[in-house]
Amino acid sequence: MGKQFDLILKNTQYVNLFTKEIYPADIGIRDGKIAYITQPGDMPLQGENCHDGHGMYALPGLIDTHVHIESSLMGPQGFCQAVLPHGTTTVLADPHEIANVMGLEGIRYMLDQCKSLPMDIFLLAPSCVPSVVGLETSKTIFDANEIEQMLRNDRVIGLGEVMDYPGVLKKDGRMMRILDVARRSGKFIQGHAPGLRGQELADYLSAGVESDHETHDAGEALEKLRAGMVLECRNASNCHDVEMIAQVIVRCGYPERVTLCTDDCEPEDLLKKGHMDEAVRAAIRGGMDPIEALKIATYNAAHLARLHDRGMLYPGYRADIVLLEDLLSLNVKEVFVCGKLVASNGHILEQQYPSNSVLPNTMELGAPLTLADFQIHVPGKTEAHLHTICYDLSDRFVTKLGEHLFPVQDGVVQVSEEPGFATFAVLERHGVNGNRSIAPVYGLGWRGGAVATTVSHDSHNLFVLGGSAEDMLLAAKTVAECGGGVCCVRNGQILTLLELPIAGLMSQEPLEALAQKSRNLQDTLREMGIVGDAPLMILGSFALAVIPEVRLTDVGLVDTVHQKKIPLFIEEEEKSK
Amino acid sequence: MGKQFDLILKNTQYVNLFTKEIYPADIGIRDGKIAYITQPGDMPLQGENCHDGHGMYALPGLIDTHVHIESSLMGPQGFCQAVLPHGTTTVLADPHEIANVMGLEGIRYMLDQCKSLPMDIFLLAPSCVPSVVGLETSKTIFDANEIEQMLRNDRVIGLGEVMDYPGVLKKDGRMMRILDVARRSGKFIQGHAPGLRGQELADYLSAGVESDHETHDAGEALEKLRAGMVLECRNASNCHDVEMIAQVIVRCGYPERVTLCTDDCEPEDLLKKGHMDEAVRAAIRGGMDPIEALKIATYNAAHLARLHDRGMLYPGYRADIVLLEDLLSLNVKEVFVCGKLVASNGHILEQQYPSNSVLPNTMELGAPLTLADFQIHVPGKTEAHLHTICYDLSDRFVTKLGEHLFPVQDGVVQVSEEPGFATFAVLERHGVNGNRSIAPVYGLGWRGGAVATTVSHDSHNLFVLGGSAEDMLLAAKTVAECGGGVCCVRNGQILTLLELPIAGLMSQEPLEALAQKSRNLQDTLREMGIVGDAPLMILGSFALAVIPEVRLTDVGLVDTVHQKKIPLFIEEEEKSK
Repeated sequence: MGKQFDLILKNTQYVNLFTKEIYPADIGIRDGKIAYITQPGDMPLQGENCHDGHGMYALPGLIDTHVHIESSLMGPQGFCQAVLPHGTTTVLADPHEIANVMGLEGIRYMLDQCKSLPMDIFLLAPSCVPSVVGLETSKTIFDANEIEQMLRNDRVIGLGEVMDYPGVLKKDGRMMRILDVARRSGKFIQGHAPGLRGQELADYLSAGVESDHETHDAGEALEKLRAGMVLECRNASNCHDVEMIAQVIVRCGYPERVTLCTDDCEPEDLLKKGHMDEAVRAAIRGGMDPIEALKIATYNAAHLARLHDRGMLYPGYRADIVLLEDLLSLNVKEVFVCGKLVASNGHILEQQYPSNSVLPNTMELGAPLTLADFQIHVPGKTEAHLHTICYDLSDRFVTKLGEHLFPVQDGVVQVSEEPGFATFAVLERHGVNGNRSIAPVYGLGWRGGAVATTVSHDSHNLFVLGGSAEDMLLAAKTVAECGGGVCCVRNGQILTLLELPIAGLMSQEPLEALAQKSRNLQDTLREMGIVGDAPLMILGSFALAVIPEVRLTDVGLVDTVHQKKIPLFIEEEEKSK
Repeated sequence: MGKQFDLILKNTQYVNLFTKEIYPADIGIRDGKIAYITQPGDMPLQGENCHDGHGMYALPGLIDTHVHIESSLMGPQGFCQAVLPHGTTTVLADPHEIANVMGLEGIRYMLDQCKSLPMDIFLLAPSCVPSVVGLETSKTIFDANEIEQMLRNDRVIGLGEVMDYPGVLKKDGRMMRILDVARRSGKFIQGHAPGLRGQELADYLSAGVESDHETHDAGEALEKLRAGMVLECRNASNCHDVEMIAQVIVRCGYPERVTLCTDDCEPEDLLKKGHMDEAVRAAIRGGMDPIEALKIATYNAAHLARLHDRGMLYPGYRADIVLLEDLLSLNVKEVFVCGKLVASNGHILEQQYPSNSVLPNTMELGAPLTLADFQIHVPGKTEAHLHTICYDLSDRFVTKLGEHLFPVQDGVVQVSEEPGFATFAVLERHGVNGNRSIAPVYGLGWRGGAVATTVSHDSHNLFVLGGSAEDMLLAAKTVAECGGGVCCVRNGQILTLLELPIAGLMSQEPLEALAQKSRNLQDTLREMGIVGDAPLMILGSFALAVIPEVRLTDVGLVDTVHQKKIPLFIEEEEKSK
């Protein structure tokens, strides 16, 4: 057979995920693939190039079936350096965020940046750009042509989360066309179906959608498993679902139709908790058997993604190997990709991977920013009756439509003069239409100052929240000038600035620096009033047009349940009746 | 959602193969697919077109991952009528036999005959036509071009059993080229690896071969599972492996990398025992849990074959449904394919499916048959020292090379005058080279008379075995005149004749008639001396150039271990030294 082995990984405890056995083994590697694994009773392998496994557990590289790299605030290179030492060797990334900002150019950028990395980052074609056509302005609109073009690329291995499940259920034309090209490609179709049950769930599955990562309730998990949906159990910075639904998976005898994913991970979590190793730990904490949890994070994932060359350590499969000290703490010591040692003791080995290249500035705001952009003008009146966004204190993510009679001074509505109120503004920044919208918000607990961010799902327009128009303007100008990012301002002083020059979403800085900056930023946001596990992610969802019931996007106030616009001025509404 | 359901299958006990639950359910079917399955607590489904499941168990149609339809002596239509009532709704058929006789024309014929059947017969591209190039004459030789051409067809979903594993291990050029095009297709690559272990097994797997159906030993099964090979557990007419290896599969916790297959089934077995239902029963007899055995025969099989539309009963999947009275006897009562009832109480419902069309006569023997074809001529001598094929009485399938000094009378070797001897003759019948070979055989226990057959693996030349040249000639002529088949003759009388006009391998007759004729033929063969479970299959293996150690093919005596020819006359051999 020519050369015997390029490398022999000696003295491991091999975790055989299929026979559910652990036994001492030497692993022979040739041409980046497993060539032989000794079985009990076999002689040790002989050869020149050996690496001592020191009796550690050997298992396949971990696979994340659903992640938005942009949420790490890093580009693919930084992300790779952050997750590879934790044993993640393959991910399915949905570049939904950059696609909203840059369209197909963003997809090409991500594909290009993922080349020559020491791990496999596959993309899923973002299915919902924008999330709801007409209710927000993204750089572009993806229809079937764009999806088909992306799916022709070998590195695009499926359709990204089909968030517009109402569109699927009501057979919206664009969603039907997109699902049609995805089905014809034969590739994986990833779902997103929070709370979907019964006949609606069946209809969504019948459309060809295979999976869901939004389930955190055990009853819902069981119903979805019974209906054949693949559960992509999520362990994100802001959603820790795995532990909640682990018992259902145990009860069903570990069905193959389960994977693990991380969805959105903040830099600090990646640094301190880990990545897919942490998701597996969560599964074990939830009651799963470690071998079964590891199989879910490797083989099941590869199977779902139609990646027939990995997810198992067997002859002919990729030598993506993780060495662990034990199967409970899952302390990843060494990581091999295609038979090459790429990470050791928490660090990536080769530092010469280039950092992400910078893109052209994506801040296309059009007209210069002025104070007037952050004020509600009502010339010649002393008061104004406005619709407002009201936060429910018991559920800070859900909003209701409210109304309030505001005083007007010199033609400007005095929002922050009223107790409990602050101002939201959204400025279209893709050079499409120059939309600028504004509305009062109530019940958020905002303590003054202003924050501006270009990380604002899903279209990532410039979102500004604040008390005074002056602070809002300064925050917005600061973010605009650095090509995107997040800036907090109080009383005319910049408190923190996180620059995200790559599409206004990502940074070139390394993980440690980013984690520090992001922590400072989150501390400031908490001081300003956005409490919770992940204030940056909460801030990023304020303009998200698919969360009930009322949001502000660049087109104005929108009723996200009925998917229609709401006028800001109640007088106007009544006149129009 | 437009129309709700085309059909509601009410009142079933739904066997959920993933959650391992059985619960009462109604099944809604739309457009040939599952549209909804009620869950515990749901309301019954309402609609016009209902079918009462009478409380029977509902599960997916069974899938056979490896079968040679030709062994049933029926064409695809007859085979379908035989197996569909037993719950087999999808098979992966390797048309290796007809390919040896007819080349690509045979493949096209099978594809054409499988069209419009009420079950899915997918083909695998035969990888070893002929089994060993140069040691036998088939109609054609398949190389990478032919394989690539076949694999481009959507109905050809993989590469058929790679029997030439020695060729793979020694990197034979043709096998490497064939495996290369198969790997590039991304389709399933089916193996055949009797007794392969250790590094050789790993090398075979490394070449991309995924499975094996030749394992009947528990130790070998465990080793293959540990190495990641898919075990296609076989329950054939002549090999009952499933029961032998079931315990290993139980012990490993039912790894997904196991399927069930039937390989070769005689008509009488199909009639009396069944098909995939019998394979599942064998698994249960071997100790498997019925739900797990059914999952192996459905989901695992679909997964191996990359058939992502079946193997499960879930919304969006094909409504291929089997209704059973109980989960131990597996008495299949009703079978639905794409939501349509196609078989009930052991019978296919629509009899209008046309029987297989007949092909041009494939008997291209060239020169007329004469007595001389069945005699060994040595002009001008009184005795002749010949090599012989010797059967080992303790293992009737294995042969050794022998030698014997025969009397010669009037220039003809008197084989049958010598106790224990009979004559083998093989006549090339594909119009390629007119090869005719002959040799004495010892130890077979032949009791006189003659049999001629065109079912003679793998090239299916005309094989004749007999005592007297006259009987051999009559048997051979009879088979030749009817376009192929099997004929037994004694003392100038035709005892039995099974006509197989389709490529000399298959008949148009229905199952019941064929089972009767095949039983008569096997009884005759047993009387003549071929004992064992399946004398017709034993007869068919007498010229098979891949069974150790010595065989007669149309090119003459061959040493199958060293893959070389052996001269018949020992004098010649010694002269040549």
